[in-house]
Amino acid sequence: MALKLFELVGVDASRPFSPFCWRTRLALAHKGLHAATVPWRFTEKAALSPYQSEKVPVLLDGEASVADSFAIAVYLEDAYPDRPSLFGGEGGRAAARFLNGWGDVAIIGGMFPLIAADIVQRLDAADAAYFRKTREARFGKSLETVAEDREAKVEGFRRSLDPLRLMLRAQPFVGGTAPNYGDHIVFGGFQWARIVSPFMLLANDDPVYAWRERMLDAYDGLARRTAAFAL
Amino acid sequence: MALKLFELVGVDASRPFSPFCWRTRLALAHKGLHAATVPWRFTEKAALSPYQSEKVPVLLDGEASVADSFAIAVYLEDAYPDRPSLFGGEGGRAAARFLNGWGDVAIIGGMFPLIAADIVQRLDAADAAYFRKTREARFGKSLETVAEDREAKVEGFRRSLDPLRLMLRAQPFVGGTAPNYGDHIVFGGFQWARIVSPFMLLANDDPVYAWRERMLDAYDGLARRTAAFAL
Repeated sequence: MALKLFELVGVDASRPFSPFCWRTRLALAHKGLHAATVPWRFTEKAALSPYQSEKVPVLLDGEASVADSFAIAVYLEDAYPDRPSLFGGEGGRAAARFLNGWGDVAIIGGMFPLIAADIVQRLDAADAAYFRKTREARFGKSLETVAEDREAKVEGFRRSLDPLRLMLRAQPFVGGTAPNYGDHIVFGGFQWARIVSPFMLLANDDPVYAWRERMLDAYDGLARRTAAFAL
Repeated sequence: MALKLFELVGVDASRPFSPFCWRTRLALAHKGLHAATVPWRFTEKAALSPYQSEKVPVLLDGEASVADSFAIAVYLEDAYPDRPSLFGGEGGRAAARFLNGWGDVAIIGGMFPLIAADIVQRLDAADAAYFRKTREARFGKSLETVAEDREAKVEGFRRSLDPLRLMLRAQPFVGGTAPNYGDHIVFGGFQWARIVSPFMLLANDDPVYAWRERMLDAYDGLARRTAAFAL
């Protein structure tokens, strides 16, 4: 049965960048599944309405459609139980709900002010106008003003990664000795930033940097094959 | 085989308060195990030296001794595999390492400036002097100065609980439908604050408040039986 994944792209349709879509892309690789990409842009809400969603990722699996990255992970775990587990059992599945919250707040929420002004540069005209209008309303200031003090703000973001650093003293992945969906959740944000922005979120000697490198190499280098943004 | 647990106490030896010891106390209850308390105070380092530790909790299980709350949880899971699982499988065990880091940084680290001036009031003279000296050196100011703006600082602490709130939209416990060691990690901090301080860390209408209530009721009301601090 052919799988299809709606993924957010900008001007370059070959470089999907949404952190939520990357969670799903890695989960599919973990399960040894291939999904064809359906490029999607912010202003193409109508394309998703048949699937009761206004946002990506949306996964189509034959007749089934699933929206929301966490719901997709749960779907894949239950629909493909004989393939490598995304959660490593019921306790891991429950804890992934917490990790999803932490990933949304600390990782994606923490990075967003640092890279939002770069994201808008990657979008086509219609999406750029939509993104600027909705996100500037959320911030209450221009994307460029938000980005102005990012060299200082990044220190707070780096500090917020301390829970991950403490964990990395004991094991190389959130999943333990190998990555699982907990890693996909957290790494999705880093892959997003990497694709859209040249801004240096991590110092080279940070254990989180080394973990990010391991995640870029995982699944036969899947994430690394989408090149980092370069000026 | 009789179990013994070294637990930090203040003037009142019947009210152990360490957040790390409460993680262990709840883990023991989860496993249906009883351990006798050995009251311990900060300045009684010598009592722990036979067990290669300077801090509690230290668990004695017959000839075995285990120091550090996470090591104790792993020990209990492996030594008592036929009793209810603390982690819910390998994925849960791995994710608990992350939760342990988040609990240390966001929960215990976040609460500490808010309640440190209350903790010192619960200690006997020798421990109070030790605690004040070591903790004021860490803060670079007096415990009372640290506490001065806690009504403002608590807002930042409350915001830092957003990952937990997002999770609580989907499930009642970190462990899913029932508490597991992930809940013990996070709740340990709340029980610590509850026993030593009258300061209100949570608003009554916060979903985290409702979760804390559920944890106070869990294990036949184990945590609630140690009364909250009252002026």
